[in-house]
Amino acid sequence: MFFTRPLARLIEEFQKFPGVGPKSAQRMAFHVLDLSAEDAQALTEAITEAKEKVKHCNTCFHLSAQDPCEICVDSRRDQQVVCVVADPKDVIAFERTREYRGQYHVLTGLISPLDGKGPDKLSIRQLLARLQNETIKEVIMAINPTVEGDATVLYLSQLIKPAGIKLSRIAFGLPMGSDLEYADDMTLSKSLEGRREI
Amino acid sequence: MFFTRPLARLIEEFQKFPGVGPKSAQRMAFHVLDLSAEDAQALTEAITEAKEKVKHCNTCFHLSAQDPCEICVDSRRDQQVVCVVADPKDVIAFERTREYRGQYHVLTGLISPLDGKGPDKLSIRQLLARLQNETIKEVIMAINPTVEGDATVLYLSQLIKPAGIKLSRIAFGLPMGSDLEYADDMTLSKSLEGRREI
Repeated sequence: MFFTRPLARLIEEFQKFPGVGPKSAQRMAFHVLDLSAEDAQALTEAITEAKEKVKHCNTCFHLSAQDPCEICVDSRRDQQVVCVVADPKDVIAFERTREYRGQYHVLTGLISPLDGKGPDKLSIRQLLARLQNETIKEVIMAINPTVEGDATVLYLSQLIKPAGIKLSRIAFGLPMGSDLEYADDMTLSKSLEGRREI
Repeated sequence: MFFTRPLARLIEEFQKFPGVGPKSAQRMAFHVLDLSAEDAQALTEAITEAKEKVKHCNTCFHLSAQDPCEICVDSRRDQQVVCVVADPKDVIAFERTREYRGQYHVLTGLISPLDGKGPDKLSIRQLLARLQNETIKEVIMAINPTVEGDATVLYLSQLIKPAGIKLSRIAFGLPMGSDLEYADDMTLSKSLEGRREI
């Protein structure tokens, strides 16, 4: 018995967080004990509120407290381009660049037969419906270059191409600031394959 | 606007935790969104319960949900030895060794004139009262070897020694598994100074 029961319980809860080991969980629990009553309440309220209010947007399946989400209703954004991603975190990553100003569609995963995850488990039906109803002219696949990613892109391209919509996939190659010498073979092959005229 | 408002708020709250940067806070917030409603409630309840129930023991000033704390009321522990530490975390560290079976006294800090922290801010008065009333025969100072730590030990020893109580300070020296070659000068000097006959 190192910790008094309520403290042990709180440490246990924090240890369930990704990347949080016993030491970090302990530090987090002590941080909570050091909080003022108001700050601790603000923390629990933020958790409860996020859990209650943040849902999937029923158009693009990104996480949002409103439906349709902030991105879908933003009329300043390009309504003719949709970027297809696997996960809400990928939307965040693109938004952070402040470069992309079109729409998104979150697949909520990738096709993975080994995990029993077929196309029906993803928001593919809803993507196709959007492509039929909305004025979308271009679809950009921003899907990771993995086995599951490639399979998903192949599957989607077979469904989308016949509709005569412009279809592309983000480029793979040497990351900015990196060194040719240390790049792995796959990345180098991809960057050679994706070379562009200058 | 990368995150929908309730999610942004939750990420902000997590960023206030020690050692948690924007990326970790984001990962933690997504973890919360992935929790079941019950698990999220268990988390907020653990926070609330810990805040409400965990207080200082009025005898030894360790953190506990009961007063006197679990250690103070444990009759199997040696009532004649008290280990003086600065912080509740130090109690945890000693308990983890499973070696020490005496009592504790948490000073709740160290004397630090530069931070305006005098002896009156610590639980020194209560320690002296314990030494007068209880049957304590030995006091072990488990205080860090810092300027503040040394000052606190000096101050306390002047108060405790006249009472004829055995007084010691934990040993400083080479940590187990380390290498002489890489030890800093201060540590080497301390380990030489504290050499023991074999």
